[in-house]
Amino acid sequence: MGEHLALAGIDSHFQTKVGDNFERMVSSIRLGLERSDAVILCGGLGPTQDDITREAIAEVMGVVLVRHPEIGDRIRAMFTARGREMSDNNLRQADVPEGATVIPQMPGTAPGLLCPVNGKVLYAVPGVPHEMREMLIGTVIPDLQKRAGLAAVIRSRVLRTWGHSESGLAEMLAGRIDELDVLGNPTLAFQASGIEGIKVRITAKAGSAQEAESILADEEARLRGIIGDLVFGVDDDSMESVVIDMLRERGLSLGVAESLTGGLMGARFTSVPGASDVFRGGIVSYASDVKFSLLGVPQGPVVSANAAKAMAEGARRALRADVALATTGVAGPAEQEGQPVGTVFLGLAMDGVSEAQRVQLPGDRQRIRQYAVISAVNLLRRRLMQN
Amino acid sequence: MGEHLALAGIDSHFQTKVGDNFERMVSSIRLGLERSDAVILCGGLGPTQDDITREAIAEVMGVVLVRHPEIGDRIRAMFTARGREMSDNNLRQADVPEGATVIPQMPGTAPGLLCPVNGKVLYAVPGVPHEMREMLIGTVIPDLQKRAGLAAVIRSRVLRTWGHSESGLAEMLAGRIDELDVLGNPTLAFQASGIEGIKVRITAKAGSAQEAESILADEEARLRGIIGDLVFGVDDDSMESVVIDMLRERGLSLGVAESLTGGLMGARFTSVPGASDVFRGGIVSYASDVKFSLLGVPQGPVVSANAAKAMAEGARRALRADVALATTGVAGPAEQEGQPVGTVFLGLAMDGVSEAQRVQLPGDRQRIRQYAVISAVNLLRRRLMQN
Repeated sequence: MGEHLALAGIDSHFQTKVGDNFERMVSSIRLGLERSDAVILCGGLGPTQDDITREAIAEVMGVVLVRHPEIGDRIRAMFTARGREMSDNNLRQADVPEGATVIPQMPGTAPGLLCPVNGKVLYAVPGVPHEMREMLIGTVIPDLQKRAGLAAVIRSRVLRTWGHSESGLAEMLAGRIDELDVLGNPTLAFQASGIEGIKVRITAKAGSAQEAESILADEEARLRGIIGDLVFGVDDDSMESVVIDMLRERGLSLGVAESLTGGLMGARFTSVPGASDVFRGGIVSYASDVKFSLLGVPQGPVVSANAAKAMAEGARRALRADVALATTGVAGPAEQEGQPVGTVFLGLAMDGVSEAQRVQLPGDRQRIRQYAVISAVNLLRRRLMQN
Repeated sequence: MGEHLALAGIDSHFQTKVGDNFERMVSSIRLGLERSDAVILCGGLGPTQDDITREAIAEVMGVVLVRHPEIGDRIRAMFTARGREMSDNNLRQADVPEGATVIPQMPGTAPGLLCPVNGKVLYAVPGVPHEMREMLIGTVIPDLQKRAGLAAVIRSRVLRTWGHSESGLAEMLAGRIDELDVLGNPTLAFQASGIEGIKVRITAKAGSAQEAESILADEEARLRGIIGDLVFGVDDDSMESVVIDMLRERGLSLGVAESLTGGLMGARFTSVPGASDVFRGGIVSYASDVKFSLLGVPQGPVVSANAAKAMAEGARRALRADVALATTGVAGPAEQEGQPVGTVFLGLAMDGVSEAQRVQLPGDRQRIRQYAVISAVNLLRRRLMQN
């Protein structure tokens, strides 16, 4: 929500979370209306007894709730269409504070509300993330922009980086950050996204969209001049979508062989729509003898560079792919073959040769598995960039 | 954080998020200290210039920041141990408001703070989730409990359910909810966890841990009498951990064949520590010809009950597993073989026979894939329960 508001040029200064408690909800809404021009309420519009956002809004507005028969009919129809029994509780979702407008999008059963309060405005949207997003983008933000008479255009672009810490990036970019502090436009912000690396967000304000885009393009070029090696993509790019695009451009197909990652690498590649142009499949060889029988890995230690290379070669052969990636290692909780937790070998078979890289990864079982996947995908990305 | 506080018997009434803005941080901290006995600050303790939690605390306390040389030495030593260059910014993390105590846990580089303010208390913990968790559980909560002189013991247990909506569960349990409203102890709460189903949390308050546990056990038995079929586990159980335990008890090994889920099912099973006792591996047959060549699926439509059954049989054979699950279907964005997005066939091969189930799943590409996995695992769970 904060990200969408920021992109729309709307300052979101305070976010408050309270439980399903009537007094605390009412006092928080009142406080929000005191210090801001608009308040967005998220959640508590469901059918159960602890969903009391409608009641809290009515209290703040000083009005009663009125049951809207046409919303009730729509809720009934939705249950019928899904072949499900409707409980009477669901009709509470048709209650609307007097004077409020119902927000037309209704992907789920919870209608949103737009409520005028003493020249300010209160929005209520469902807590279910995709319903919230649709109502926020479709109704709330356009309404806020209209009320604010926003003229300036705000655009932003995210440079996705991987392989360096936030403080390291800040140090590399320190000179440019100082310059921008003086200029005031565009601005830079860093955002750590766990195993997904560090995002560098450029935000530009201008009189027109074209002008804003041109500021972004200039700044992106300048930053890439400093940290270009670390940037794997922009905006919605992910490491896997970038690699799939690179493979597609080169007309190469991909297969994977996974041990400690258990299918995560295949899952990441296939999360990209259109992955089927490139991705042929994978072999999850969790048990050692599956490595030997399906991938032709030679008997011996399976947490090793040789096994990683043989897995990649085996996957390339078995799946008839041009390129194959492999992971083998120790996710924990216990060590394996005398290797400590976090020891991972990445394998890559391509152009008739195979290579392996040993990495020592930090964190618990889940983090080690996730890091192993992104490290493997990054290995392929860097290799493709050399070609 | 809210969950841990609730379990420790500490009411957390307000949660506020503000940006890295000095005035808004200071006013929010002051407001928090007005309406509560303690305030926990999370984040903004990092090394970059926008990390100003230390400065905001000093302002609220009316004191200056003092650089602690021994913390600086520890930070330097950590960088040296990791073989990394330390930037001067990192030494800002050694700044401590006068009168504050440093929280000893230091898994990362950001030390936590414990700050007395006019008879109340302010804690600052890092925003990195695992560092936050360690400090919260290790220091903040015990300190809060000591200050509160908490005598009552609070225990809770979560029943994990799958396959029914929150309102449906509430309707089934309505009679018991009414009774508990009168009794006041234990209490019930519902929590939707997306594709992971609905959690029903029982919370009991008592004079001793033993007494609280006995209340929980009684209530669990009572609820299972009403919704037992839908309960797949308790507390930290996941659908996959429950199924792995059932397979282990029965001495059965497991393999998977995945199409639209691309490795997600294998990834879920192998996220469970000790999965290697049971899980042999998987074949991700994303391209149709991989289904034919590696799994022996007969030529023909691959989004079909026959293909799902053949995939499960093929996986069982190729991976030499006792039991195999398979998924094939249409994750979108486009339809396939004339089948609409969301059409999924689940296959199960076990005891020399195979079966398939057709499901129509809602949502976008990612939700369809996730639902397909959990539906397949649930199919196996129900089948194992019959045995």
